Amino acid sequence: MAEPMILALSCADRPGIVARVTGYLAQCGCNIIEAQQFDDLAEGRFFMRVAFDPGAADREEIREGFGSIAHEYGMAWSMLRQDRPRRVLLLVSKFDHCLADLLYRQRIDEIAMEIVGVVSNHPREAINTLMLGDIPFHHLPIAKGEKAAQEARIRALVEETRAELVVLARYMQILSDEMAAYLSGRCINIHHSFLPGFKGAKPYHQAHARGVKMIGATAHYVTADLDEGPIIHQDVEPVTHADTPEEMVRKGRDIERRVLAEAVRLHLEDRVLVNGARTVVFRS
Amino acid sequence: MAEPMILALSCADRPGIVARVTGYLAQCGCNIIEAQQFDDLAEGRFFMRVAFDPGAADREEIREGFGSIAHEYGMAWSMLRQDRPRRVLLLVSKFDHCLADLLYRQRIDEIAMEIVGVVSNHPREAINTLMLGDIPFHHLPIAKGEKAAQEARIRALVEETRAELVVLARYMQILSDEMAAYLSGRCINIHHSFLPGFKGAKPYHQAHARGVKMIGATAHYVTADLDEGPIIHQDVEPVTHADTPEEMVRKGRDIERRVLAEAVRLHLEDRVLVNGARTVVFRS
Amino acid sequence: MAEPMILALSCADRPGIVARVTGYLAQCGCNIIEAQQFDDLAEGRFFMRVAFDPGAADREEIREGFGSIAHEYGMAWSMLRQDRPRRVLLLVSKFDHCLADLLYRQRIDEIAMEIVGVVSNHPREAINTLMLGDIPFHHLPIAKGEKAAQEARIRALVEETRAELVVLARYMQILSDEMAAYLSGRCINIHHSFLPGFKGAKPYHQAHARGVKMIGATAHYVTADLDEGPIIHQDVEPVTHADTPEEMVRKGRDIERRVLAEAVRLHLEDRVLVNGARTVVFRS
Amino acid sequence: MAEPMILALSCADRPGIVARVTGYLAQCGCNIIEAQQFDDLAEGRFFMRVAFDPGAADREEIREGFGSIAHEYGMAWSMLRQDRPRRVLLLVSKFDHCLADLLYRQRIDEIAMEIVGVVSNHPREAINTLMLGDIPFHHLPIAKGEKAAQEARIRALVEETRAELVVLARYMQILSDEMAAYLSGRCINIHHSFLPGFKGAKPYHQAHARGVKMIGATAHYVTADLDEGPIIHQDVEPVTHADTPEEMVRKGRDIERRVLAEAVRLHLEDRVLVNGARTVVFRS
Repeated sequence: MAEPMILALSCADRPGIVARVTGYLAQCGCNIIEAQQFDDLAEGRFFMRVAFDPGAADREEIREGFGSIAHEYGMAWSMLRQDRPRRVLLLVSKFDHCLADLLYRQRIDEIAMEIVGVVSNHPREAINTLMLGDIPFHHLPIAKGEKAAQEARIRALVEETRAELVVLARYMQILSDEMAAYLSGRCINIHHSFLPGFKGAKPYHQAHARGVKMIGATAHYVTADLDEGPIIHQDVEPVTHADTPEEMVRKGRDIERRVLAEAVRLHLEDRVLVNGARTVVFRS
Repeated sequence: MAEPMILALSCADRPGIVARVTGYLAQCGCNIIEAQQFDDLAEGRFFMRVAFDPGAADREEIREGFGSIAHEYGMAWSMLRQDRPRRVLLLVSKFDHCLADLLYRQRIDEIAMEIVGVVSNHPREAINTLMLGDIPFHHLPIAKGEKAAQEARIRALVEETRAELVVLARYMQILSDEMAAYLSGRCINIHHSFLPGFKGAKPYHQAHARGVKMIGATAHYVTADLDEGPIIHQDVEPVTHADTPEEMVRKGRDIERRVLAEAVRLHLEDRVLVNGARTVVFRS
Repeated sequence: MAEPMILALSCADRPGIVARVTGYLAQCGCNIIEAQQFDDLAEGRFFMRVAFDPGAADREEIREGFGSIAHEYGMAWSMLRQDRPRRVLLLVSKFDHCLADLLYRQRIDEIAMEIVGVVSNHPREAINTLMLGDIPFHHLPIAKGEKAAQEARIRALVEETRAELVVLARYMQILSDEMAAYLSGRCINIHHSFLPGFKGAKPYHQAHARGVKMIGATAHYVTADLDEGPIIHQDVEPVTHADTPEEMVRKGRDIERRVLAEAVRLHLEDRVLVNGARTVVFRS
Repeated sequence: MAEPMILALSCADRPGIVARVTGYLAQCGCNIIEAQQFDDLAEGRFFMRVAFDPGAADREEIREGFGSIAHEYGMAWSMLRQDRPRRVLLLVSKFDHCLADLLYRQRIDEIAMEIVGVVSNHPREAINTLMLGDIPFHHLPIAKGEKAAQEARIRALVEETRAELVVLARYMQILSDEMAAYLSGRCINIHHSFLPGFKGAKPYHQAHARGVKMIGATAHYVTADLDEGPIIHQDVEPVTHADTPEEMVRKGRDIERRVLAEAVRLHLEDRVLVNGARTVVFRS
């Protein structure tokens, strides 16, 4: 089997799309390994993800040929090979459990990505994990009134490293609207609450004060609208009256890191398609 | 073993409470079967639940003797026998899955309660379940502008039936502040969302619009502040992009009925103590 | 939109199946609403489920035309309309929580099925639920040494009622090999443990003795090999040291009824395809 | 508040134990912060855990005084301070996700322990995580027929390091009966299945072959009876037909590491009491 390619697409729904797409791939001699689709009947939008073995066919020719179908249907689409890890830039502040977790998963090849750098507004000494190794670490503190300058440096790093994805791995700084817009569609954040509950700061303290019986975490795409971007993945754990805010923080770390890691994995496998303010997630 | 009694209490924390309470019970010849306590260190409040076998001792004498300890410590307390089912009044509107579920659980003795009546703002024909049997059914519709009158009739029923607990089993009417205050502390509601997310009407439609990946339900005590009463129990289930609001409603039914039934069971076993805006829940 | 049809199929994997199937449906003027497929790469088997709107096309003609494709690919397949509820026979013993639950779900149209009868080895008086209503109830006790005769009567009932599915809703009798073979592929059982743990009798007592921290239930197709049939759905709940076997039985009832109901729903929506000793389950 | 002490005890049940224990602590001037108890009515065994603030009292005197009560009741007991981390030895083979996880949790003070060494039957180069830092690493390979010798070296390490707990963090070697007996009561293992299902080797492959819909992990005390020791903690995750054994392995890593970490934390906080073949676990 040749290394699979992933076709992900969305367009206005109309009859015959599946037949057209799969017919094209069959005609190219490709073998479909995994295929999922979703009709959003309410919105009239169609979403599809196909993993296929290109066989003997030339990848570039398949892609070019598909371009004209995509044009005809007005598709938003991508067709990427899975054997080239994407370039990922990680941003972190003081709490590095998500960072440590992503670094380990990358190292054992659980999540295929090339980590092109780690940025923090805190110095390297503030990092607990020893997993950084040789990965370039950038200490970009935010001096008072210098937020714009710091964000410009992050942007420059995104450009230099040609990062395809930026992950806010508990990066506790609010991005400016410009920065959020700049990163839109290629930036995943982990919010330490089960959104839309407890937006904003100190969500576990809010959760404790409200007396909820479960706490959670939410991984979402970054948009200009803080804590309102399309949700990729969420999970929760039960808590009791005996859990102090500090114990919720402890339990929360486990939820945060697995929710963020899952969202990053799903994104890097082209399993997440944006559908307005929501997402379509094609799990295997 | 004699039928156990349940002592539930709360008071300002100070050293020696447990020793005093358990010492008293030991001196009466009672055997403790189950005991739980919780110190809310932040609030300085102490909570305790003790299930004990009174042995040969006279229940009334135990209770009287305990009264002076309770007085000394300024306790809020109850000491009830578990062999007398509480009197419960159920309120329902059109969707009767929670009602059907509670009726069945009562019937197989899973939840010990005497259902003294079912009230609905819809006629009996609107009820799907056949489980009502001989339970008195009261159709109390709400004519325009006559809400106060209808609530007065419910209050009269609560008095007549000497109901100790009122359960809003998907009763889709907003109680007046007076009614909520009247029922405060003895009324449990099921809200079909994971509070504090999606308060108010049509929560599953709200959840769908926001694109969350889990939906839930919340059982809470009724207070004047709508959807803000102390939470007793919550649970969630995963949903996907493919779940329409209607499918969320379907999945939600299962969550709602098990969350409400659990809350009612916990309450009737004196396992729920109110701690300001929150609850302490002593599970076995 | 016309009432959708469901095509479910499996065959040896080879390139071009999806294109062929979806091409055929497109050519008939059908619009695909939902489609899922699975390649079992290890076994070389392909599975597919397609829900489609037949539009103006004649259902019988679509089916006939598909027959020749199916023949060509050696497919096992069905193409059924979803607006005709299947005929279902329910078997129960003493514990009727699953029965009560299925009857309620059918009544509120959550599970589309026509319940053609309820069979029990206990008399009608042993049934707790009041949900039976007008559904024919058959008391088929098992006199010593008369098991074969009783099973023959059940078989006769299956024939008379033309039942398409038999559900063992906590039917606590072990079927003979002949009976199991007779019902094979059209009979779902609920086992009150998380298989393969705790096969056989009194699984909650076994679970308590082993000291597990979670209990579960398993819905599976009936085969001659007791407790070994292909698993359709499973779920679990946490338990603690404080849970007696009786409390496990109580908690288990909730798991059993929701696991069985989900399995029945999945089966009746043609979402379950058998893959040797396992199943492929296409959830929406 | 002085650093709390933890009293954990078990004995044959009889009336008045709680009063006696709490009365003694009150008389010493200690303030109880957290207390839990459990009566195993079937076995006639009583279990209790008390966290208390010793206040101005002398810890050694409290302990000595308690000794005579313990003697009187025939208690198995411990009374330890929580501000001295226990000495822990970690054993690992090729898969180091549990090791990496425990090292990180220790480093951020989530689990209070002093890691006195890491032992592996593979060389240090086989370890993926960079978290080892300065922790002594011992490569103790098992040459053919030299298992007894290798185990003797581990025993020597346990003695030298005065390890109070040994954690088998995916140590893929079967301990000899002698070694298991030697470590009994102070050794925790993670088994990568939901016991008692899929004992023995390659449990995820077994699970895949059986077609289960959930996979899990089990942390248990090591006893001579392989995979049969008292269970401390278990958890599961759903899987589908599309999960290959390799994907189950991936999902399993997350379950394994959180189940093992939780078991280690519970043990180190004296929250786990052995009750024959089972455990009593007092969560906060």
